[in-house]
Amino acid sequence: MKSVKIVGSGTYLPKQVIDNDYFNNKFSLKDDWIYKRTGIRKRYWEDEKNVTQMAVAAVKNAINKYNIDVQQIDCIIACSTTTDKIMPGVSFEIQKELDIKKCMCIDLLAGCSGYINAFDIARKYICLEEVECALVVAVEKVSEFLNYEDINTSIILGDGAAATILKSSKELKIYSQKIESIGQEGHLLTCSYKNKLYMDGKNIYKFAVTKTVDNINDLLKNNNLTLDDIKYIVPHQSNMRIMEAIIKRLNISKEKMYVNLENIGNTFCASIPIALDEMYDKKLLNPKDKIIMIGYGGGLNLGSILLEI
Amino acid sequence: MKSVKIVGSGTYLPKQVIDNDYFNNKFSLKDDWIYKRTGIRKRYWEDEKNVTQMAVAAVKNAINKYNIDVQQIDCIIACSTTTDKIMPGVSFEIQKELDIKKCMCIDLLAGCSGYINAFDIARKYICLEEVECALVVAVEKVSEFLNYEDINTSIILGDGAAATILKSSKELKIYSQKIESIGQEGHLLTCSYKNKLYMDGKNIYKFAVTKTVDNINDLLKNNNLTLDDIKYIVPHQSNMRIMEAIIKRLNISKEKMYVNLENIGNTFCASIPIALDEMYDKKLLNPKDKIIMIGYGGGLNLGSILLEI
Repeated sequence: MKSVKIVGSGTYLPKQVIDNDYFNNKFSLKDDWIYKRTGIRKRYWEDEKNVTQMAVAAVKNAINKYNIDVQQIDCIIACSTTTDKIMPGVSFEIQKELDIKKCMCIDLLAGCSGYINAFDIARKYICLEEVECALVVAVEKVSEFLNYEDINTSIILGDGAAATILKSSKELKIYSQKIESIGQEGHLLTCSYKNKLYMDGKNIYKFAVTKTVDNINDLLKNNNLTLDDIKYIVPHQSNMRIMEAIIKRLNISKEKMYVNLENIGNTFCASIPIALDEMYDKKLLNPKDKIIMIGYGGGLNLGSILLEI
Repeated sequence: MKSVKIVGSGTYLPKQVIDNDYFNNKFSLKDDWIYKRTGIRKRYWEDEKNVTQMAVAAVKNAINKYNIDVQQIDCIIACSTTTDKIMPGVSFEIQKELDIKKCMCIDLLAGCSGYINAFDIARKYICLEEVECALVVAVEKVSEFLNYEDINTSIILGDGAAATILKSSKELKIYSQKIESIGQEGHLLTCSYKNKLYMDGKNIYKFAVTKTVDNINDLLKNNNLTLDDIKYIVPHQSNMRIMEAIIKRLNISKEKMYVNLENIGNTFCASIPIALDEMYDKKLLNPKDKIIMIGYGGGLNLGSILLEI
């Protein structure tokens, strides 16, 4: 069974920056008030590109930065909560835009934790040697589903896209996942084409803070590891208060959790690969480093991946 | 690596039957004219249940028929082209409705061939021993996306749902897949929340007739098998003319292709598992039989699975 390694990564963020002044003008909410409650100074709301164009921009960024031959890619898995593309899905449109000749395309609908599912499925195709090089793309245009009057969600959420390119590796690399769903609590975070996004912030906080910590501890235990073995936790960038509570409960240093919420906001399922891409750009990740990515959100869905770089 | 076997199967079809008289009244199209061109006498259009309720009804049919303990299910993969459920997805709502305690939920958006993708992903989780029992559900409420004035699509398409339950098998069973996408031709079959379903029937016919035959021949070749080794081809039930052309090009007997289009119509990604469920009900499938399921449609997406029962 083959191991998997990341060979490329890219991001797309919209041109239109929404800083906290926007909410000050609209709701008289001061920058510091928002920052204290969310950890966010700015987010992006797309006003030009559609979901496919956003996804393609992220893929092109990855391809150019890492000098990837697109014809190597034999699998595209796209995930999004806020796509308007139902047939063909975004993955097929990426294939078309990049004119990738031989390829299997899959689209997932999976809430904020969708990237974890997409990454894990891509890894399975690679480790079973049915795919050599997989492109995993997460894209969100949450702004189209926002109730702009709802400060619980509108001050937090932003648009963005990111792509991660995976290949099989001859070196044996540690990989493990723990993905679990709690459909029973699905009503806490909902979105449909008829209704705007709704979040029960209080109960999502409880879910996010307790379940993620249990999930990470289980993942470590399953692999006979402790947090000392982990260089970074790369979580879904939901809200600073949730992330601070997870840091406290895990009893880790602030530096061990990678946070880039301040200048990007919560981009749903795109938040983990955007963070990962920044970490690669900053050269924070080196071979043999072990990281844990953890997604949580709508579904409710929850999942972590232990990955050796 | 574990093998996979089907341990349960069920179907849900709506109460409202739309027979060819409906189109005779609307467009003065005679029953025989429609039947000659499509192979279809009736289809179902849902007017009561939502997509989740349809999916749950199919799952309950499977559970009751095969006496399945739902708490065994540790993975639900739902696929649909026509869901209005974006968060939580249908898989999460099935988990909630059946109150399944420990489970991973995934939703795919994948056009008419989505069941093949969902089945193949479920099989990967089982064969890597990360899942013991997977529920694969395909559900379509195509009637919500129909342009009723477009006789190319409205006389063919119907609503329906089906569930297949997979478990790991101690016996070694043959399994192989060939899934490929052609996003470059995605414009031939499209659907979005803003625009109704559109199909370029002529070019979809060409795609369906040529690519499926090549795909099946490649799958057989990869496994050193011939059509003589295959008991049934179970295709996406698209249109009798397409299926007859495939029969001719494969040079197989009519009996080798399972067809149930006449009384159900084309139910997009639900059509293969509905056909499979009928075949189990009719006791057409026995241990050691080899079948090939083949999906094709929007994306464009195309995929076959060689399965030993």
